Amino acid sequence: MPSERAKTVPIRPLSGFPELLPAQRHVEQEVIATLARTFELHGFANIETRAVEPMDQLLRKGDTSKEVYVLRRLQEEGGKDKGIGLHFDLTVPFARYVLENAGKLEFPFRRYQVQKVWRGERPQEGRFREFTQADIDIVGRDDLPFHHDVEVARVMLEALGRLTFLPGFRLQVNNRKLIQGFYAGLGVTGEGIDEVMRLVDKLDKLDPSRVRQLLLDEAGISEEQADKALALATIRTQDDSFVDRVRALDVKHDLLDEGLDELATLVRACAPLATATVRIEADLSIARGLDYYTGTVFETRLDGYESLGSICSGGRYDALASDGRTTYPGVGISLGVSRVLVPLVQRGVLTADRSVPSVVLVAVTDEETRAEADAIATALRAQGIPCEVAPTAAKFGKQIRHAERRGIPYVWFGSEVKDIRSGNQVAADPATWQPPTQDLRPQVVTTTEDSNTEGNPS
Amino acid sequence: MPSERAKTVPIRPLSGFPELLPAQRHVEQEVIATLARTFELHGFANIETRAVEPMDQLLRKGDTSKEVYVLRRLQEEGGKDKGIGLHFDLTVPFARYVLENAGKLEFPFRRYQVQKVWRGERPQEGRFREFTQADIDIVGRDDLPFHHDVEVARVMLEALGRLTFLPGFRLQVNNRKLIQGFYAGLGVTGEGIDEVMRLVDKLDKLDPSRVRQLLLDEAGISEEQADKALALATIRTQDDSFVDRVRALDVKHDLLDEGLDELATLVRACAPLATATVRIEADLSIARGLDYYTGTVFETRLDGYESLGSICSGGRYDALASDGRTTYPGVGISLGVSRVLVPLVQRGVLTADRSVPSVVLVAVTDEETRAEADAIATALRAQGIPCEVAPTAAKFGKQIRHAERRGIPYVWFGSEVKDIRSGNQVAADPATWQPPTQDLRPQVVTTTEDSNTEGNPS
Repeated sequence: MPSERAKTVPIRPLSGFPELLPAQRHVEQEVIATLARTFELHGFANIETRAVEPMDQLLRKGDTSKEVYVLRRLQEEGGKDKGIGLHFDLTVPFARYVLENAGKLEFPFRRYQVQKVWRGERPQEGRFREFTQADIDIVGRDDLPFHHDVEVARVMLEALGRLTFLPGFRLQVNNRKLIQGFYAGLGVTGEGIDEVMRLVDKLDKLDPSRVRQLLLDEAGISEEQADKALALATIRTQDDSFVDRVRALDVKHDLLDEGLDELATLVRACAPLATATVRIEADLSIARGLDYYTGTVFETRLDGYESLGSICSGGRYDALASDGRTTYPGVGISLGVSRVLVPLVQRGVLTADRSVPSVVLVAVTDEETRAEADAIATALRAQGIPCEVAPTAAKFGKQIRHAERRGIPYVWFGSEVKDIRSGNQVAADPATWQPPTQDLRPQVVTTTEDSNTEGNPS
Repeated sequence: MPSERAKTVPIRPLSGFPELLPAQRHVEQEVIATLARTFELHGFANIETRAVEPMDQLLRKGDTSKEVYVLRRLQEEGGKDKGIGLHFDLTVPFARYVLENAGKLEFPFRRYQVQKVWRGERPQEGRFREFTQADIDIVGRDDLPFHHDVEVARVMLEALGRLTFLPGFRLQVNNRKLIQGFYAGLGVTGEGIDEVMRLVDKLDKLDPSRVRQLLLDEAGISEEQADKALALATIRTQDDSFVDRVRALDVKHDLLDEGLDELATLVRACAPLATATVRIEADLSIARGLDYYTGTVFETRLDGYESLGSICSGGRYDALASDGRTTYPGVGISLGVSRVLVPLVQRGVLTADRSVPSVVLVAVTDEETRAEADAIATALRAQGIPCEVAPTAAKFGKQIRHAERRGIPYVWFGSEVKDIRSGNQVAADPATWQPPTQDLRPQVVTTTEDSNTEGNPS
């Protein structure tokens, strides 16, 4: 593992590659464990894909080409490895995995995937060059019933609802069929539909009056068409009352009806999962821009951190992958774990109440008695209690300070255990003693103020 | 997430980048969870480091330079990002992390780290370009008592001992002080000691007679010195009896005494952890080649897979890192998770008994009753039971085959639940029903023959 090279390591933080201190990492582990537990309760199997894909695969979407990290072997300039790069999302590798293993997977295939992805873009708040995503997708062979759209939304809502130490989430849903059917019903045709959608999508950056002008100038639609397209995009409801508001715009099209039905079904099915911190709403302005969704679309805003943009996005696509003979439709949603967590831990809003898993520090007052301390620790571990033995013999006060600095709640002295928070000290047997359940694992703690006392390593 | 690009994805497996099917991935998750649980019981905190390091850092060890993957941003040829590459182990990044955060960490600092690493080398069995390592290290500031060497060995032995579905492990330990003191006691001096160590280390590849000749020719030592150096390397004991065998060679040196004491202490402290599948032995041929260990050294062989080489290695180093003012000594050990697991899952020796987390498939016999099936599933999940609802309404037989193909043990029909392995079907209430504990999670299953029925995706 080590070598002479390590003796004078230069310290060089790399912008856009966030790292966490142990207590901060515990918060991330809790988030990932909660997500994984929820996904597995719903039958999603975990997979991981390799970090690299062939460049031709990564470059299919012109938009992201600038963000790809290309790999080459140091000793093989211009060699055969030129053609691979780091994945920039988990969807491209998953589509490839499904095709590569189609004969060995059972469809519909539910999977979750929590991995790092890399983008070679300029760092800015909430944008990283290396970050963790948590994706769920359900993929069918040839077809995939609509109720899986509902399922994916419900599973992610349930998962987000369990992250009670995070700010509130607002899951915004829409449906491409609804938008496209509405525009078609207005008389917009062909590529005009995509153009109108692309321009209306600018409402999150531009004034409605400016977007209206663009619709007239660039999409070439009439004032009445533009006004109705903009009116549609203002509709936002937490129940299925959006249906009546759309109907009131007096536009008719079969595809619109289909989209309204699907979205109403989705909102009704998700509404019961709303909690104090998680809401769902139909937001008819959501289109997911240039991505090729074909039905349901999702975005998510984090309360108080709207500048982060959507932190959890996805939707339905009729062809996640295809090998020319078989098409694999899918529906999925991807949570930006780092995008949510890194700003919060860096501002000190979230941390853990200790930097080590240890519940107990077993004191050593004399090196001669280290074996006895080790035996106590072994007995505690046999009970499932994480603990550590003092690294050097020292007086009581020093041992307590050693525990305090790490946030370890208990110090074991001989045949007694002391809760160093309350000062309570009681006689105890390491073979039977149990701490209160909430002390068994580090707890995530939140502060409302920005007290970045632990600091941040990147 | 998706886009048009995904419609015709070419399938291209990449040699050296192994991927697992869901049931195989479950085995890996079980291994990692068991390791993490054990490490945390001993107070090791988890961290992750970024995947990249500056190239000058990665290239300090000339040996590995050929194995480094260099990164560049696609749109920035010859730009400022030329200087980073993917880490090839977890020690170099950890040393940098310790220095970068020294003011925010508590020493001795115990950490475990389970991450992928990358090496641009030619693939061969058990050698990958992307693989997962699990490292534990304890790092002190200025000093680190020897008992931490014992601790690291005991923690890894305990972790390996819990991986009962793997073949047996043999942890081989030695001590650089013992070897170097012995050679010094023989009268070898200066760089000659390293040269003799380097040549004796070839015993795993060359005949003893050939190594003896190299010792005479290249190290220029006498026949008596060569014979004693070779005699030392043949000593291998499962207890501290190696001490007497070394003494019988009649070589004396203070450093030798120190090494013998440390190694005997280590072996005596670890012997009680031996199980049916995990053994420890003092093997005085182990030197860890070119790595700059300064005391304890570890290697590990997997029974029946000796051709994989050492699958878990490490040792003590007096300077894991230094900033010029402060030196950070460390002791650690690194398990090659992929190196152990990938050959076993690829040969079909290890897999899981189902490909999904689901314990129950809730049948749907008619789309009209899907809401009732969903309600049953919700009740089961509230009890902590992973389950899924049938994707399409179908007759009983088809639903049972759907469950069978995934290895799901139970199918829920209306108010009854059927164990499809035994055929037993009983009335049950989803709000209170519980499966046997062993059915709650997929189980790792082992086969002795090479029945690679599930296939392997890479």
